[in-house]
Amino acid sequence: MALLFYSQDDDPHAWGAALRALLPELDLRIWPEIGDRREIEAALVWLPPPGLFASLPGLRAIFSLGAGVDAMLGQEHLPDVPLCRLVDPSLTRTMAEFVLAQVLYYHRDLDLYAAQQQAARWRLRLPQAAASRTVGVMGLGELGGAAARLLAGHGFEVLGWSRTKRTIDGVRTFAGSAGLAPFLARSEMLVCLLPLTAETEGLLDAALFAGLPAGAVLVHVGRGRQLVPADLMAALDTGQLRGAAIDVTPEEPLPADDPLWRHPGVRLTPHVASYAQPATAAATVVENLLRLRRGEPLLAVVDRSRGY
Amino acid sequence: MALLFYSQDDDPHAWGAALRALLPELDLRIWPEIGDRREIEAALVWLPPPGLFASLPGLRAIFSLGAGVDAMLGQEHLPDVPLCRLVDPSLTRTMAEFVLAQVLYYHRDLDLYAAQQQAARWRLRLPQAAASRTVGVMGLGELGGAAARLLAGHGFEVLGWSRTKRTIDGVRTFAGSAGLAPFLARSEMLVCLLPLTAETEGLLDAALFAGLPAGAVLVHVGRGRQLVPADLMAALDTGQLRGAAIDVTPEEPLPADDPLWRHPGVRLTPHVASYAQPATAAATVVENLLRLRRGEPLLAVVDRSRGY
Repeated sequence: MALLFYSQDDDPHAWGAALRALLPELDLRIWPEIGDRREIEAALVWLPPPGLFASLPGLRAIFSLGAGVDAMLGQEHLPDVPLCRLVDPSLTRTMAEFVLAQVLYYHRDLDLYAAQQQAARWRLRLPQAAASRTVGVMGLGELGGAAARLLAGHGFEVLGWSRTKRTIDGVRTFAGSAGLAPFLARSEMLVCLLPLTAETEGLLDAALFAGLPAGAVLVHVGRGRQLVPADLMAALDTGQLRGAAIDVTPEEPLPADDPLWRHPGVRLTPHVASYAQPATAAATVVENLLRLRRGEPLLAVVDRSRGY
Repeated sequence: MALLFYSQDDDPHAWGAALRALLPELDLRIWPEIGDRREIEAALVWLPPPGLFASLPGLRAIFSLGAGVDAMLGQEHLPDVPLCRLVDPSLTRTMAEFVLAQVLYYHRDLDLYAAQQQAARWRLRLPQAAASRTVGVMGLGELGGAAARLLAGHGFEVLGWSRTKRTIDGVRTFAGSAGLAPFLARSEMLVCLLPLTAETEGLLDAALFAGLPAGAVLVHVGRGRQLVPADLMAALDTGQLRGAAIDVTPEEPLPADDPLWRHPGVRLTPHVASYAQPATAAATVVENLLRLRRGEPLLAVVDRSRGY
């Protein structure tokens, strides 16, 4: 059983070392040196070229190298084999940490003090207790759930929203379209960690921003195409939003002439909230390879009908 | 027994309510309406005017409204009665939170991404694991100890330094002048939470910065006169320091023409890392009043010979 590796963004040697540490006999084929295509039974890939999968007649499973599988699901002729999400405890921890860093930044008014510094203005604002701030987390899967728990552990009042109802200790959860308005109405800081689906594309728009309390903050670490940048900038201009930390954008890299770069209310990071580390992410890939061999159900399989 | 309240920065009514909630019979005298001076046995004060204490013949204890008592100790004719620090679990938590917010800001390279945003530059840096970052905390009292524990709990490798040796679970501690160089040499991020004493005045100078690893970060939340601003700016200019979050300055408010305001490596906040909240800080004041009545030793008494 051979495993194909394809990515322009990940290090094949680091992945090879991490996989072989767990499965020394692994037959890893790093694209384009893939040998006999008929021997390839599984593929570990990020943004594979069109037609790659069609050329692999023995393919029985696809493992994504990223947590988001929207790009993969958008491919034509995706073979009808299990498609598995990447699961990486380090990716989850790193994401939750980034969310905490950005929420603490606004919670402690560091955006307002940066503006005061520009004006050489020494003016104190009394710090608010974390317990008096309500943070809403959209998306309560692997990543959103971990972010919500970390924020709640820090003392914030945390609300959560997801497509279907989830239960998380210490987090008040809402679900579905009926739950969205009451969730938004109380979210002084909104964290987006939703997967990209037909329902979430363009979700962060004028209507959603209008449903937040005046002066709310957005921390967007979901997927770029969930955001409508023009609506974001308009909401910042009216003061409906106080600020936004944006880690993902509809087009990446963001073109140098995009006005998002220069908007004073936007703090932009280049899709760095989290990333998969081979050393910790290899375990689920290897577990799935072993399950494939034994004919057992795979872990973290994407439900194509819901899109994640 | 009457308690005098004097402060230009704190709300006497909030303090009165918090104290009376615990001690309904309290005879609180809010300056300048202080009635018969001879009845005043204790004073709860911040930056009292010269001569105030000398006019109170029955004074038996002084309670500071701030965690730092250096200004009080610098007063001439300070009566020889117990001087007690403010102890406030909320002040401690708020300080530790501010330190975490600033450390996470640099840990997740948000300073570097802010600079990239200015240049509309999309360039990823791999996030580092918190466990691979060493944070050094100077001062391991009430505030420094809490900050060190919070950082360690978040996963950072934490070192601690204090005048005399302290032990904190999960923190490698150093002490005294002999321990300073090995402590500094490993502190990629240095947090200062020392009290102001003759030994710590001007401690954050060129020699200290030179002892840190190249590209280190300073988070200064101690006392303003510990910092030598010219040395800080020089260390930032050479790259010996990558950045500095400065919450306290030798002169406060910092004059509008001070170059610290405009240095690109300095992120300035106007002494807002923490503050005392009457609701939580009143408990120790009331406990000390009761101890004073019963003739028992007071809590949190300042050792005037060491200065804190």
